[in-house]
Amino acid sequence: MALAIELAAKGRYTTDPNPNVGAIIVKEGKVVGEGYHHQAGDGHAEVYALEQAGEYARGATCYVTLEPCSHFGRTPPCANALITAGVKRVVVAMLDPNPLVAGKGVALLQQAGVAVDCGIMATEARALNRGFLSAMERKKPWLKLKLAASIDGRTALANGQSQWITGPKARADVQFYRAQSSAILSTASTVLADNARLTVRQPKHEPVITTLQNGELRQPLRVILDRRQQLTGRELLFKSAGAILLCVAPDKPLRTMPSHVQQQVVPLAADGYFDLPALLALMAERQVRSVWVEAGATLAGALLHQELVDEFILYQAPVMLGPQARAMADLPQLGDLSQAHRFAFDDVCRLGPDIRLTAVLAGPG
Amino acid sequence: MALAIELAAKGRYTTDPNPNVGAIIVKEGKVVGEGYHHQAGDGHAEVYALEQAGEYARGATCYVTLEPCSHFGRTPPCANALITAGVKRVVVAMLDPNPLVAGKGVALLQQAGVAVDCGIMATEARALNRGFLSAMERKKPWLKLKLAASIDGRTALANGQSQWITGPKARADVQFYRAQSSAILSTASTVLADNARLTVRQPKHEPVITTLQNGELRQPLRVILDRRQQLTGRELLFKSAGAILLCVAPDKPLRTMPSHVQQQVVPLAADGYFDLPALLALMAERQVRSVWVEAGATLAGALLHQELVDEFILYQAPVMLGPQARAMADLPQLGDLSQAHRFAFDDVCRLGPDIRLTAVLAGPG
Repeated sequence: MALAIELAAKGRYTTDPNPNVGAIIVKEGKVVGEGYHHQAGDGHAEVYALEQAGEYARGATCYVTLEPCSHFGRTPPCANALITAGVKRVVVAMLDPNPLVAGKGVALLQQAGVAVDCGIMATEARALNRGFLSAMERKKPWLKLKLAASIDGRTALANGQSQWITGPKARADVQFYRAQSSAILSTASTVLADNARLTVRQPKHEPVITTLQNGELRQPLRVILDRRQQLTGRELLFKSAGAILLCVAPDKPLRTMPSHVQQQVVPLAADGYFDLPALLALMAERQVRSVWVEAGATLAGALLHQELVDEFILYQAPVMLGPQARAMADLPQLGDLSQAHRFAFDDVCRLGPDIRLTAVLAGPG
Repeated sequence: MALAIELAAKGRYTTDPNPNVGAIIVKEGKVVGEGYHHQAGDGHAEVYALEQAGEYARGATCYVTLEPCSHFGRTPPCANALITAGVKRVVVAMLDPNPLVAGKGVALLQQAGVAVDCGIMATEARALNRGFLSAMERKKPWLKLKLAASIDGRTALANGQSQWITGPKARADVQFYRAQSSAILSTASTVLADNARLTVRQPKHEPVITTLQNGELRQPLRVILDRRQQLTGRELLFKSAGAILLCVAPDKPLRTMPSHVQQQVVPLAADGYFDLPALLALMAERQVRSVWVEAGATLAGALLHQELVDEFILYQAPVMLGPQARAMADLPQLGDLSQAHRFAFDDVCRLGPDIRLTAVLAGPG
C-alpha cells in the first residue's frame, strides 16, 4: 500500500478536481502492475495497473489507495474492470466519500466474489486527498493560508516596506503549493501591491512540477476579491494564462473584463466584508477542492477568526522588525487565552536562510 | 578529535567558569587514555587521559580540544605533564585565547621536541566554549536570549494573561540552557510576575543534568535588575539556593538583603535604563562567561536594539494571539528594512506541541 500511495502522489499537480489514486497488482509476492491517476478524463489508477499486469491479473491482489469506482463517469467503473480481469482480492486504503461511489464499489466487488479488505493505511491515504475529501465530506474546500513573516510575526514595516523578508528558496516553495491547489484566493489590494500574476511557474531547480499531458502546467483558478472595484482588467494578473473568478459585491455594477475573467457576485456579511463561508460554498460547487490563500492581514485575519483556515504554511525569516511593524493577521483582541486560535504543528523545515512551519487547525480540547 | 570533543561536552553543566576540554591518547591506532575536565579545581582533561594511559603514553599521540595550559593555576601545567609522560605528538583543535596560555602551551611542547598540529576541527571546538571564548576574546559574556511566543510573536494577551503558551517539554528544555550558563539575567518585574526562582532543577525525564562532585547541581549566578527597588528580599527567588547579584541604580540607597545576595550598583544610560554594556563588562570581570536571559519585552528589546544578543532561543507555540496581544521585544520603529535585526538560524526542532528555533547574530552583510 505504501507503494500505491507513492504512485498516487505523482498525480498531485495534475488530477484536480479528481482525487489522487494509486494502484498496484501483486501476484505471488511480485508487483506485476502499477498505475496512478494522472489527470481528469484520463484513465484511473486501476486501469493502468491492470493493463500492465495483463494476464497476470487473474488470481492476483490489487492494492488501491481509494475505493474503486462503481459508476460510469468519463471512464467505465473500475470495480467492473477488476472483476473482469479476475482479480481475487482487493485491498482498499479508504472508502470513496463521493456519493456516487461511497461503498458501492466495494459492494460490487464482494457480490462478484472478490475478497475486500478496507482501511489499510487510511491515514496516509486521507492525507493524499485532503482537498477532495473536504469537498465531499464538508461541502467546502480545504483551505491553506500562506503567511510570510519575521520571527516576531511581522510582514512589513509600518511604512509598508516588505520586499525580501524571506529568501528565494522560500519564495520558490510557494510555487509547489500553488500548483497543488484547485484555486488561489487573493484580494485586489494584494494584486495591486505586489503587481501579482498568481500563476504557477516552473521553479528553476529540482524538483519539477509535473505538467498536464499537453505539456503545460495546470493553472489553478484565481479567485480575486474586489469589493471596492479596484481592478481595471489591465493589471499583469489579467495578462497571464488561466481562468480568473473576480468576486464582486452585490451593490456594484459588473464591469467590462477580458474574456477569461468571470465575475461572481458574492454576498456581503453583516460586517460589510464578503461573506466568506458563502464564498467557500460557492467555490465547492465549482469543484474547487483546495484553496491556497495569498493575501494580506485583513483576509488572513478574517479567515482565521471565522475558523475557516484548515492549515497554514508560515515562512519565517531570521529577522526582527519590532512591535510597530505590521502584524501577519488582523484578529480581534482576546479576553482569555482559551479563545486563542490553536493549531497543531505538522512539519518544520529549513529553506535556505528561512524556516517553513506548517500546522493544521487543532481539534477541540 | 571528534571523540575528544564528545568527551569535552560531558563537562558542559559543571566546568564553569573553566572551558570544556576533552583529550584522548592514541597509541598504535588504539585509544589508550580518555579524559575531560569536570569542574573547576579538578584535574584537566590531559591529566585524566595520561593517568589512564600510564606507560602507554610514551611515544603516543594526544588529541586535545584546547591548547594544553602552560601556567600553574589550581593544577600544574598540562604541557609539562605531556612532555614528562613522553608523548610524541600533540594534536590541538584550537589555541587557548586565555592570555595566560595563548600559544605558550604549544611553544613549550615544541621546545621539548614534541610535534604539534593545530586547528583540527577548530569550528566544533569553538562551539564547545562560546562563553569562555567570548569572555576571553571580547571581554564580555556570550549572551543567549530566551523568548517564548505564539507564532505571531506574542508573549501574552493585552490583559497580561500568559500562562501555558508553551507546553511542559519546552519549559523543561529551559533547564538545560540555565544549567549550561554562568549566570541567569532577569528583572524584578519578571521575578514578581512569575514568582520565579530562576534556579536549575533536574528535569523529571532524560537526559539528566550532570551534577558537581558533591552531587549537587551547579547553580548559575542569578543577576536581577531592580532599578525601581521592587524586590523586598522575601520573594521565592531569595529562598532558593545559589548566589544572587542584585543590580541597583546609583541614585538609590542599598537595602538590607539576605546574606547570599550581593548588591551591585550599575550605572544608568542616557535613557534612564541600566547601562547594559557596562553591566556585561562587570559580569565578565566576575568570570561570567555566558548569560541566559529570561525576561520581558523591555529587557529583550533593549538587548536586541543595542546588539548585545549573540544568540536567541525562541520557543513557539502553535497558537495565534492577534495584534493587540503583547509583543516579544520592545524595539523602536524601523524606517528601513536594512536596519532590521538580522540573525542566522542555527537549529530548529520540535518539543512536544511546540517548536524551538535557535539563531545567532548574523554577521555584516
